[in-house]
Amino acid sequence: MTAADMKLVVVGASGRMGQALIRTVHAMDGAKLHAAVVRPGSPFVGKDAGELAGLGPIGIPVTDQPLEAFVEAEGVLDFTKPDITVEFAGLAAQARIVHVIGTTGCSAEDEDRIGAAARHARVVKSGNMSLGVNLLSVMTRQAAKALDATDWDIEIVEMHHRHKVDAPSGTALLLGEAAAQGRGIPLAENAVRVRDGHTGARVSGTIGFATLRGGSVIGEHSVLLAGEGETVTLSHSAIDRSIFARGAVKAALWARDKKPGRYSMLDVLGLN
Amino acid sequence: MTAADMKLVVVGASGRMGQALIRTVHAMDGAKLHAAVVRPGSPFVGKDAGELAGLGPIGIPVTDQPLEAFVEAEGVLDFTKPDITVEFAGLAAQARIVHVIGTTGCSAEDEDRIGAAARHARVVKSGNMSLGVNLLSVMTRQAAKALDATDWDIEIVEMHHRHKVDAPSGTALLLGEAAAQGRGIPLAENAVRVRDGHTGARVSGTIGFATLRGGSVIGEHSVLLAGEGETVTLSHSAIDRSIFARGAVKAALWARDKKPGRYSMLDVLGLN
Amino acid sequence: MTAADMKLVVVGASGRMGQALIRTVHAMDGAKLHAAVVRPGSPFVGKDAGELAGLGPIGIPVTDQPLEAFVEAEGVLDFTKPDITVEFAGLAAQARIVHVIGTTGCSAEDEDRIGAAARHARVVKSGNMSLGVNLLSVMTRQAAKALDATDWDIEIVEMHHRHKVDAPSGTALLLGEAAAQGRGIPLAENAVRVRDGHTGARVSGTIGFATLRGGSVIGEHSVLLAGEGETVTLSHSAIDRSIFARGAVKAALWARDKKPGRYSMLDVLGLN
Amino acid sequence: MTAADMKLVVVGASGRMGQALIRTVHAMDGAKLHAAVVRPGSPFVGKDAGELAGLGPIGIPVTDQPLEAFVEAEGVLDFTKPDITVEFAGLAAQARIVHVIGTTGCSAEDEDRIGAAARHARVVKSGNMSLGVNLLSVMTRQAAKALDATDWDIEIVEMHHRHKVDAPSGTALLLGEAAAQGRGIPLAENAVRVRDGHTGARVSGTIGFATLRGGSVIGEHSVLLAGEGETVTLSHSAIDRSIFARGAVKAALWARDKKPGRYSMLDVLGLN
Repeated sequence: MTAADMKLVVVGASGRMGQALIRTVHAMDGAKLHAAVVRPGSPFVGKDAGELAGLGPIGIPVTDQPLEAFVEAEGVLDFTKPDITVEFAGLAAQARIVHVIGTTGCSAEDEDRIGAAARHARVVKSGNMSLGVNLLSVMTRQAAKALDATDWDIEIVEMHHRHKVDAPSGTALLLGEAAAQGRGIPLAENAVRVRDGHTGARVSGTIGFATLRGGSVIGEHSVLLAGEGETVTLSHSAIDRSIFARGAVKAALWARDKKPGRYSMLDVLGLN
Repeated sequence: MTAADMKLVVVGASGRMGQALIRTVHAMDGAKLHAAVVRPGSPFVGKDAGELAGLGPIGIPVTDQPLEAFVEAEGVLDFTKPDITVEFAGLAAQARIVHVIGTTGCSAEDEDRIGAAARHARVVKSGNMSLGVNLLSVMTRQAAKALDATDWDIEIVEMHHRHKVDAPSGTALLLGEAAAQGRGIPLAENAVRVRDGHTGARVSGTIGFATLRGGSVIGEHSVLLAGEGETVTLSHSAIDRSIFARGAVKAALWARDKKPGRYSMLDVLGLN
Repeated sequence: MTAADMKLVVVGASGRMGQALIRTVHAMDGAKLHAAVVRPGSPFVGKDAGELAGLGPIGIPVTDQPLEAFVEAEGVLDFTKPDITVEFAGLAAQARIVHVIGTTGCSAEDEDRIGAAARHARVVKSGNMSLGVNLLSVMTRQAAKALDATDWDIEIVEMHHRHKVDAPSGTALLLGEAAAQGRGIPLAENAVRVRDGHTGARVSGTIGFATLRGGSVIGEHSVLLAGEGETVTLSHSAIDRSIFARGAVKAALWARDKKPGRYSMLDVLGLN
Repeated sequence: MTAADMKLVVVGASGRMGQALIRTVHAMDGAKLHAAVVRPGSPFVGKDAGELAGLGPIGIPVTDQPLEAFVEAEGVLDFTKPDITVEFAGLAAQARIVHVIGTTGCSAEDEDRIGAAARHARVVKSGNMSLGVNLLSVMTRQAAKALDATDWDIEIVEMHHRHKVDAPSGTALLLGEAAAQGRGIPLAENAVRVRDGHTGARVSGTIGFATLRGGSVIGEHSVLLAGEGETVTLSHSAIDRSIFARGAVKAALWARDKKPGRYSMLDVLGLN
């Protein structure tokens, strides 16, 4: 079925994420690398994309001409920067293809321009491309809604490697937001981010966070809903950073036959 | 607000579950014990229901006259036997009250008669009254559907105390059914209930079970969805058998202002 | 073998722990209740010890005469207060019996007097009578010593019910002390008790704490040793407060045929 | 301190484990690659060892002359095959250096010859070079001994990726052996390897196994000791296959200044 493989372009191909995307597209069934794009004048232009990604030669030279790369392609995988992503969104709309966006930090104006592009492109955009984390987030919102705040206490605990410099993790906060949405409350006023010494009894309706750091742990997150006599725990464990690249390819394959529009990973998971 | 407390009848009041229901109704806000019913001629008739349940006297004598007990009541909590439950369903319909049914083992005919009663009664019936387990079951079905079988393997592991005589637990099988439903496959043909020796590689699409036994563990269940580089785990831990009684009272309170009809714990959780 | 059952006295018999001890002695093989002692003039004097503990009558009236109670006994279970414990230690020494002490908050002077009593009594004293927690503490010290601080990071996480008013738990701190001992460092200077916001990378050699609160969780403790590519986790889960009473009876049975002296739960576990 | 780095030879350098050893020696403080040895006539002879291992060139050509490689070296890392290992043991003895052996499947005769070599070499040999697994094994034996079989039930649960073809894992069985040793019983007669259907109550003193398979999980092992009201759990989680290579280098560094003799990973951990 190679003929039917979806032809994907990786942009930002020389970065760490770009290289991971090249390797993942190369390895996954149903997709194949169509082009690898770097910024104009990059020293990598003309090199073999497979060599760049540590795969050995695959016969696809790196290019700095996105328009040419997109014209025959079916989708673009993009974990670059907001201004570049906005530009690629315009090109993807022209080419009427899929644009999977893992770029973070977009402004409201950037989002508007991406939204405009989505009239012609099929855009899938998410702050975290892992299928598992997105699923966990939906289930956290649901569980927080279903189990009432008087009886059930929500706690979020995460562990990452010793080099991580902030706490709680972005994903822990994202899960906290999901829980707060389920409860219909703002997270900021209800988060308990540390506990030490004489804390007093737990205040009903709060959402607690706890942070562990150590070793080379890639990312563990658990949401606990603790009631009288029973606890429900929803967890995600990442053992490989390739999950973000895999999620992006999955999103592209899912969007291949959809109408133009803007989608999220929840659509990909069939949960919207 | 004692005036507004929901007036509940516990049937099968002298059994272990009946006593737990009396204690739970007594302890929970929003509900109060209206009557405690035992089978005709029981030696407990006339005794104080609180004494029976280890609470000390509460001024409610045990009765063997259900009709009398139901007439002024607002709901019935019933973990008895199929034939008795069917009879109580008729009486609850007459009284136009809530009938919470935790009874297991009902035949198709029993179900029909309960369904008929539900034209006038508000019936909430479930094989497991724990809110947490019911939520886990819904989330298991969803997750199994959202994460495709080619990439994600489902495993269910449970632990119970050393006295349990069967494996896997009924709840583990219930979770397996939920996973199979999410996948649109029959559980029986796809369950892998044991692994030992040379098993060969895991067959894609199967649902594995593993059983632990030891100590006085009341009930731990986990559903794992293991993909390439990431694992999602949904768990429930019971530390107190009162969760079933609590769930039943919650169901009664929820059904208090609903229309006649047949409901499940998923309705109570707002997940249907 | 009832003839050989060890005859135990419960002191502080009317308190919550005293009642738990009566129930546990009653239930465990190899031990039997010899007497139940309360403070002089208590309203419970003369009542049946079994009724006091919720067991129904067992034919042993509660007494306020410890000397009489000890003279024919083989051991005393004592979770009272320092000044009372010191007095009982003297009586246990006179009677040359076993004195199991779960009392906390003893001063150095109290300890000296208990030590003096241990010339004639067999004293087993510990701040936490759970076999599991004591074992965890020994293993934590060992693991912290075996796995060097440059490569392995130690984190301690605990969860307790919503009513607990302090953090971290006493047991979490006890495990932290064990880890610090294994490393040969003082805990106070190396403990990281909270993390929030920009924390910077983890400082090598520190011992981190994280606290969860919710529901009715009785007590969960985990010690994680996280290295490059692997994590070792040592955990204890309590699902029943009776474990402290059970540990005390175990300690008494263990000490029955030992020489006079002062022992800890590590001796009972055979780990000293 | 580069001058003092321990000079290590990797044998079997072209295999998957050999390459991992080259990368690990290259990355770890206190060690440096002295030579990389392959079998006589290998096509890799003369190639750069760093290139072979995916590191880029490091200026050390692969050789098929072990004697030459050993003469100026301080240690050998060996995960080859029994007959080759026996030969290398002789050479290591001649060179009076450290010989770390991760080779499995050695016969009694092989062991005798390795033992003879250990009169002059410092041999560290183990079936599993992970520090964490070795620590877990020691602690399992201790815990099984300290917590008596009447009251505490032992269960071992493991999870591995979907491609694993046997169950339980070798490490699970190794942990089972450790538990059985702690209890002073033979594992074979006391192992319960599967549970399904009507099992009856758990037989006291048995050691249960449970197996999970799924995704790309590298290796999770837990030993549970479940008593009345409490459970102790000892776990190991591997997230990177490099832990075996790291353990081997650690063993070499530890043995550097020891007397000739035969050692295990427990010596390296200071637990013997």
